[in-house]
Amino acid sequence: MGKIVDTKMKFLVDALVKSYYDNVEIIKFDTAEQLNRSLIIELTEKLRCLIFPGYFGKKNISGGLIEYHTGELLDDVNYNLTKQIARALRFQNPPQADEDLRSARASELSFAFLSTLPDLRDVLATDVSAAYDGDPAAYNKDEIISSYPGIYAITVNRLAHELYKLGVPLIPRIMTEHAHNITGIDIHPGATIGHHFFIDHGTGIVIGETTIIGNFVKLYQGVTLGALSTRGGQVLKEVKRHPTIEDHVTIYSGASILGGNTIIGEGVVIGSNAFVTKSVPEKTKVSVKNPELQFMSDEQQNKWEHKEFQQDGVFDYMI
Amino acid sequence: MGKIVDTKMKFLVDALVKSYYDNVEIIKFDTAEQLNRSLIIELTEKLRCLIFPGYFGKKNISGGLIEYHTGELLDDVNYNLTKQIARALRFQNPPQADEDLRSARASELSFAFLSTLPDLRDVLATDVSAAYDGDPAAYNKDEIISSYPGIYAITVNRLAHELYKLGVPLIPRIMTEHAHNITGIDIHPGATIGHHFFIDHGTGIVIGETTIIGNFVKLYQGVTLGALSTRGGQVLKEVKRHPTIEDHVTIYSGASILGGNTIIGEGVVIGSNAFVTKSVPEKTKVSVKNPELQFMSDEQQNKWEHKEFQQDGVFDYMI
Amino acid sequence: MGKIVDTKMKFLVDALVKSYYDNVEIIKFDTAEQLNRSLIIELTEKLRCLIFPGYFGKKNISGGLIEYHTGELLDDVNYNLTKQIARALRFQNPPQADEDLRSARASELSFAFLSTLPDLRDVLATDVSAAYDGDPAAYNKDEIISSYPGIYAITVNRLAHELYKLGVPLIPRIMTEHAHNITGIDIHPGATIGHHFFIDHGTGIVIGETTIIGNFVKLYQGVTLGALSTRGGQVLKEVKRHPTIEDHVTIYSGASILGGNTIIGEGVVIGSNAFVTKSVPEKTKVSVKNPELQFMSDEQQNKWEHKEFQQDGVFDYMI
Repeated sequence: MGKIVDTKMKFLVDALVKSYYDNVEIIKFDTAEQLNRSLIIELTEKLRCLIFPGYFGKKNISGGLIEYHTGELLDDVNYNLTKQIARALRFQNPPQADEDLRSARASELSFAFLSTLPDLRDVLATDVSAAYDGDPAAYNKDEIISSYPGIYAITVNRLAHELYKLGVPLIPRIMTEHAHNITGIDIHPGATIGHHFFIDHGTGIVIGETTIIGNFVKLYQGVTLGALSTRGGQVLKEVKRHPTIEDHVTIYSGASILGGNTIIGEGVVIGSNAFVTKSVPEKTKVSVKNPELQFMSDEQQNKWEHKEFQQDGVFDYMI
Repeated sequence: MGKIVDTKMKFLVDALVKSYYDNVEIIKFDTAEQLNRSLIIELTEKLRCLIFPGYFGKKNISGGLIEYHTGELLDDVNYNLTKQIARALRFQNPPQADEDLRSARASELSFAFLSTLPDLRDVLATDVSAAYDGDPAAYNKDEIISSYPGIYAITVNRLAHELYKLGVPLIPRIMTEHAHNITGIDIHPGATIGHHFFIDHGTGIVIGETTIIGNFVKLYQGVTLGALSTRGGQVLKEVKRHPTIEDHVTIYSGASILGGNTIIGEGVVIGSNAFVTKSVPEKTKVSVKNPELQFMSDEQQNKWEHKEFQQDGVFDYMI
Repeated sequence: MGKIVDTKMKFLVDALVKSYYDNVEIIKFDTAEQLNRSLIIELTEKLRCLIFPGYFGKKNISGGLIEYHTGELLDDVNYNLTKQIARALRFQNPPQADEDLRSARASELSFAFLSTLPDLRDVLATDVSAAYDGDPAAYNKDEIISSYPGIYAITVNRLAHELYKLGVPLIPRIMTEHAHNITGIDIHPGATIGHHFFIDHGTGIVIGETTIIGNFVKLYQGVTLGALSTRGGQVLKEVKRHPTIEDHVTIYSGASILGGNTIIGEGVVIGSNAFVTKSVPEKTKVSVKNPELQFMSDEQQNKWEHKEFQQDGVFDYMI
């Protein structure tokens, strides 16, 4: 049923293979050394199991068994991660051509990365606490760890950020873009984020590469921490393009904070949909000016009306 | 290649196991009784097959065969759901310590839940109709059922809401956060939603736990039905924090409606990006005031200009 | 454990089967001819492998082997796609009742579609270039192809758009809604999009069915290219309801451009959160008017203050 005759199929194959040699920009001939995206995603999930033991894995970790399972899983992660890092190092700038040296360096980097897991657990425990304390809808910590997209995103980001700091190319971004796919929260692995970080709802959040975020910061859905202009393109690669957010800042839904010199001081509250391109001093509330509404009832077709009382309490959410 | 020497691996394992005992906030030792998140997601997909038979399953359900397949699938869902509910009941407040009583209660709850499926089918059929009637881009109802993220989200929400009403902990939120992952639409299982509910596009929508939504309501992407302030944290758990939306309301993209005392009356239309924290009487249109634009041509660098004509028709989308 | 007694299970099955016959709007009895959604998603992934060889597949494509793997994969895609198209044609308007004619037509359509792959590769290579040139955070083209959600979305859209132009029902939308699930970017398969198209971040973007987009266009997260009003519902099916965006236009985050007669001229820059329902002449910058902020420090509780200096540089991101 429905088979194309052989000459037609040959025509299609020839045309496509010709296109591969005509346009080599988007083909990868050396697949043997290609990074394995689905394996990297699998490693990310296994790292989550090592961070939150018992929540996602199926193994019995009670009693003395925890050491066996941890050892087995950690060895598996280290073995595969080392191989992927060795491949990624081919893209380093300047590249390391010698395969043995790449391999030895990959082994060092994997060890350095896995050594950070205990500290990452401590800081992620503060993120879980911040989510529980900040969200009346949270049932308990189990719900937060097993369901909250914000915890998923920050877990993957903290892991990827360690690899980013070690200078491992490509792998950190594959990890965070996977978390972006799952959660709608787009945190670049370069972003530096303090403890007790809480993302509520989260869909549409963007946090750029050179962002610095302090402790006890709370972000709502749709917040952008971005660059003022990227017209410079690749020329801007090493420049601090994204803002600095100090401790105890809350940023409500849909607000944008832009620019590498923009510093949001300690304790600041930024209102919904505010568009901020300058620094804000500490302990200040910021809101869009005149967030007024107009009204039109059925009887007043074509005439909008302003109702003063509607403005009362419009900032109550920022209390 | 790239193997860490054994002493190094032992160092990593010891450090991580030590961290498990040092920080027990984010470890789950009793995995035998742990909820199985991937099984709950699988059950959610099977429940979708029971709601929309023939759309997602692969079985031949023509003629008299439908009873066999329904019986087999329903028995499978009931068996596994009962076991997961029994585990979830350990987290109930107050907890039920007796395993046999938990098991018996879980069986009752699963039966009560599955008894609602016929009624859920009737209301979901109205949602499919609302999507078809409201969207010129809809090709037919098959497209809506098989592709529309809004239908996916409301299907999972209606299922989870029944479990939520029955007092089952944790499982409803695992179901709705899975739908949030898939669709970018974040509906808390506590939200009460009437028939003929239509979500267009949907990414970024947030609907809070104590929201009440009437019949024939239409929401666009990026709408928030949220709380005014969550500073109270866990103290606010039982309080109505989210708005009430009455029948035949349309809320355009990016609008926020906040607060537990905020009632949006019948037939109201809320314009894009409006930020509403007070009640709106029935049959009223609401828009941001002066949604004016300014313009700068190549010749007028540094000088923004206001063009009156641009404001004509700016509210035509609310007609 | 926890089993419902048989009479209760029989009650549940009977009630549900009765509901299937009572409400036939959302049941599909002829499953043998039902489209297979997961197979269509699998085909979409295989088409991505054919577009970007070596990036996602696991096969060694070096040397002369590429022809074997391409032939095998293309034959597999063609075989399964033809069968799915034949099923989809049953929903065509007017429907083709004759199964043999549907099958022959499906074979023609699959061939016509697969013939476009070399041209699609050329235009997708321009999209990858636009992403690299426009994003300082891009490490290299490998990162873009393997991780960027914007490239994922535009790849699936360009594939689906070819099927859409050929008049294939349902399949294009299943493909693009899958990409919407993965990326949060909602592009209708009907949208026509030029070369060098770049989506940055992307979550929350909506591009409607009758949108026309020129070359070198750049969109940020949360942009809507939508309809003014869909109150007409199905009556509007064939009408141009969505805007036209000419070459070299940049649209910043959260902006909405609405209406079928709205033309955004060449070289226009639309600022964040602008709400545009009228045409804009070429080489013009457009921004929300008075995007002013107000401030309240700890000492000035209850009194908002306007700080003039804050408005300096507020449009620097549009340079």
